[in-house]
Amino acid sequence: MTFNASVLTLYPEMFPGPLGTSIAGRALREGAWALDTVQIRDFATDKHRSVDDTPAGGGAGMVLRADVLAAAVDSICGGVPMLAMSPRGKPLTQARVREIAAGPGVAVLCGRFEGFDERIFEGRAVEPVSIGDYILSGGEMGALVLLDACIRLLPGVMGAPSSGVEESFESGLLEYPHYTRPVTWEGRTIPEVLRSGDHARIAAWRKQMAETDTRLRRPDLWERHVGARVKPPSGARHPSEDEQL
Amino acid sequence: MTFNASVLTLYPEMFPGPLGTSIAGRALREGAWALDTVQIRDFATDKHRSVDDTPAGGGAGMVLRADVLAAAVDSICGGVPMLAMSPRGKPLTQARVREIAAGPGVAVLCGRFEGFDERIFEGRAVEPVSIGDYILSGGEMGALVLLDACIRLLPGVMGAPSSGVEESFESGLLEYPHYTRPVTWEGRTIPEVLRSGDHARIAAWRKQMAETDTRLRRPDLWERHVGARVKPPSGARHPSEDEQL
Repeated sequence: MTFNASVLTLYPEMFPGPLGTSIAGRALREGAWALDTVQIRDFATDKHRSVDDTPAGGGAGMVLRADVLAAAVDSICGGVPMLAMSPRGKPLTQARVREIAAGPGVAVLCGRFEGFDERIFEGRAVEPVSIGDYILSGGEMGALVLLDACIRLLPGVMGAPSSGVEESFESGLLEYPHYTRPVTWEGRTIPEVLRSGDHARIAAWRKQMAETDTRLRRPDLWERHVGARVKPPSGARHPSEDEQL
Repeated sequence: MTFNASVLTLYPEMFPGPLGTSIAGRALREGAWALDTVQIRDFATDKHRSVDDTPAGGGAGMVLRADVLAAAVDSICGGVPMLAMSPRGKPLTQARVREIAAGPGVAVLCGRFEGFDERIFEGRAVEPVSIGDYILSGGEMGALVLLDACIRLLPGVMGAPSSGVEESFESGLLEYPHYTRPVTWEGRTIPEVLRSGDHARIAAWRKQMAETDTRLRRPDLWERHVGARVKPPSGARHPSEDEQL
């Protein structure tokens, strides 16, 4: 089954772009996913092919017109979620990525300028999604990120089927730290437990590190993980290697 | 002054990619920023040009070697922050983007596989940064996002100098919603206040909408905005248009 990605954009030449190389590129060539780009400008109705106009109420920049966006959206076959990349949107999570990747595909509306006429969201059941709390020059980078996150989860795309589990966010925690050879590098040695061959100890250490790192680095994720009622201890700190062993 | 971007990657062909088009592409051609890619594999020391090895303690995937990464990092001229894209990193914010864009440049280390040998972070003062709580096939998409966010803030890059203010996150709030012509589209009319020409009322309405949308959509941002002690009212809801006018 092919995952169908449609991107509605003023810059179709940006796609597949980096998604044409490496893992996603191979998956595209092998038919695990298909890409369709829609030039929003093709749905302009005036002789200048205008897609935007000045903001109602004044201010800098230009706003993408609801009528033009709606015509572009209506050109897409239904049956897939229609997302719009927007800093006002709901933050993208690995859980949402997994949902989308399990479905038949996704359509992504990419904004430019000051953004979309707000009426498009209700008018066409478009779901605003944000990839993070920063501003990009357009929605295209967000679409690339969203598609990359989905594509790697499609059946057969990743080399090892076990990749994709035990990763950051899949359990609601950051992933534990990784080490590889050389055992000692510039005086820094791989934690002894990882060299012990004792699988139970290794698993316990990794669980502890995932929990500790999440608590220290991402108290927001940690609070969600343990539930709002259980507060992390205020004295939380990284366990020393001695304590771990 | 040129902003110098260095990207350390196993896929240099992904760059500039989408950053070669549109606003960032024009800025690149005009010299507002410069791009240098470093092939990490060039710093492998064995005859197979290995950059990775199996995870200490076992598990799926491969881990990028600290010694190879360090040699690649050492090849970069200093004086710019060295970031590594990692889901274990600190979430990227617009404030951090603004700091980086105000400096001389940035170097970005892109991971693949299961990630980096953890020792590289301390060993070379590499700052792990996350663009969001989802997993990508590699750090390259994150580097593209980070660079795009920085480049649009460089002097002379954006058309209107006033773009970049009054945007989402710049004030710690989501941006207010935008509207443009047509005034009525499919029975949906632009809020009257935006058509009133009364600049004070428009400014007040936009401020209220930015606050309300942030409170409802992003309680995490809202709590940070108002300070941890002031909790949002539990009955928070979108003001109806009547109330706003």
